[in-house]
Amino acid sequence: MAVYTEVGDEDLIAFIAEYDLGDVVSCKGIAEGVENTNYLLQTTLGQYILTLYEKRVKKSDLPFFLGLIEHLAAQDVSCPVPLHGRDGNALRQLCDRPAAMVSFLDGMWPRRIKPGHCSALGAALAQLHVAGDSYPVERPNALSVQAWRPLFDACAARADTVSPGLSTILARELDHLESHWPEGLPTGVCHADLFPDNVFFIGGDLSGIIDFYFACTDFFAYDLAICLNAWCFERDNSFNITKARLMLSRYRTVRPFSDAEVQALPLLARGSALRFLLTRLYDWLHHPEGALVQPKDPLDYLAKLSFHQTGNGPEAYGLE
Amino acid sequence: MAVYTEVGDEDLIAFIAEYDLGDVVSCKGIAEGVENTNYLLQTTLGQYILTLYEKRVKKSDLPFFLGLIEHLAAQDVSCPVPLHGRDGNALRQLCDRPAAMVSFLDGMWPRRIKPGHCSALGAALAQLHVAGDSYPVERPNALSVQAWRPLFDACAARADTVSPGLSTILARELDHLESHWPEGLPTGVCHADLFPDNVFFIGGDLSGIIDFYFACTDFFAYDLAICLNAWCFERDNSFNITKARLMLSRYRTVRPFSDAEVQALPLLARGSALRFLLTRLYDWLHHPEGALVQPKDPLDYLAKLSFHQTGNGPEAYGLE
Repeated sequence: MAVYTEVGDEDLIAFIAEYDLGDVVSCKGIAEGVENTNYLLQTTLGQYILTLYEKRVKKSDLPFFLGLIEHLAAQDVSCPVPLHGRDGNALRQLCDRPAAMVSFLDGMWPRRIKPGHCSALGAALAQLHVAGDSYPVERPNALSVQAWRPLFDACAARADTVSPGLSTILARELDHLESHWPEGLPTGVCHADLFPDNVFFIGGDLSGIIDFYFACTDFFAYDLAICLNAWCFERDNSFNITKARLMLSRYRTVRPFSDAEVQALPLLARGSALRFLLTRLYDWLHHPEGALVQPKDPLDYLAKLSFHQTGNGPEAYGLE
Repeated sequence: MAVYTEVGDEDLIAFIAEYDLGDVVSCKGIAEGVENTNYLLQTTLGQYILTLYEKRVKKSDLPFFLGLIEHLAAQDVSCPVPLHGRDGNALRQLCDRPAAMVSFLDGMWPRRIKPGHCSALGAALAQLHVAGDSYPVERPNALSVQAWRPLFDACAARADTVSPGLSTILARELDHLESHWPEGLPTGVCHADLFPDNVFFIGGDLSGIIDFYFACTDFFAYDLAICLNAWCFERDNSFNITKARLMLSRYRTVRPFSDAEVQALPLLARGSALRFLLTRLYDWLHHPEGALVQPKDPLDYLAKLSFHQTGNGPEAYGLE
């Protein structure tokens, strides 16, 4: 939660003048979004989200992200729509940073996950995967299996300070995943960061998906594995098979699974758990003192990984 | 900038149900406000600010603050208006914290202060002082001259680590102010924290004043002295007498100064500079590692104090 860049009122008014959005009425920094600076902007014509992309987002990736949400929105996926300035550009510059304005989505992210949320998420994720299939640009997943060893190497020496024995656990898991990672599964656009704070609901209905700044081309089933980890564990890190079953069964009503995907899901869930365990561990060990953002505790993902390591088959996730 | 308390969607919906505000559409934590947690809440009927009072605000002071803004708003001071639940209460409870909802004010706070801002502020501050005069409740200023020695004592030993010689400067200044602090000046409701981020403008017009959580009963001229320090120094800490003259001259068109106030202003400006120097120094030396809020650099206020210490009379502030 942070505003990294303070936008001056004069800079803002000059920036907004490039759009046909009326006059600025209010602009408040939002305490959400870990990577970028976000403002909720109100003009005489409506409300919008203004994002300034900070250094953790690669500028060369921004056309992929903005083009993707425009593509998805055109196919009725409820996600932010980039606004274009009078010159046609959606990607602009503000306070020496790349910046873009997108439409505002109603809804709130669920703080307490209920089975109905998981069910709705399954359907929405499948719709996203189907809608993304016609997006012509690719972006390899920079945080998939090939990225984990460098992360591990950067953390190994101090991993045991976070949890005794962690370094050995990570090393073994990494060996296993590298040698067993599947190939040839159905592939396409993945959100790759679909945590509850990126999914809005109104009442019980899913009203929108935000924050596509990890989106990439990867196995669809890996995206589902990320969601299993992010949505189907309780606060005590016990796995809720009812939530998983609902998520997966709603998903397959929109996009059927191949048999290979069903068989791969337990391993992909391990991989997804290791991915977030490693990135959180890296941030935990490397965050600068006095940083605006508190790093997330990596050990939740160690508990999730342990569940997946028990060698259960697809039926442990509610798959038949 | 921080959200200290995450409000769950179910808790929020139950809280809002106590008001006649329609259904919740969106709720975003605002990255503004150092002391409390603030959400920008949108319902089917409008938008509001929801504040959860964190531990730095004394619960027993909240009726004073909420009653004050209600009183001021009724007299056309543009400030947030507390909303009352169906049971008549404005001060409620949410997530084990005192909480209140207030109306939303349009406008943006000025990042770059122009003379016109200072002029508008002078008029608005005088209107606030006049409107507050009929508010029947008093609250002594907990951060006036009597509070400074305990703050100094808590910082003295380490003050020189922030700036060599600072401890001696503070000790001398404190002696001077304690022995010369004026008595009997016109007194009433002061905002006492009227920094630019608490004053909203639309175009060049002042649209509202927020954040009355330091409001208290003190010398009107001391409130002005706070504004002189907060609005009339440039980023290089040089004093801009044009801004001061505009602020003071517009103020006195609404509420004339007594001669004693004119004479006291330079000393009050020293006092106000010392107050913020001491509280910022305290926070600088005592903030916990990993705190969500970065403490503000106290040394800006050392530079401001030095200006006021040069022994200028009221004419140095544009007063005749």
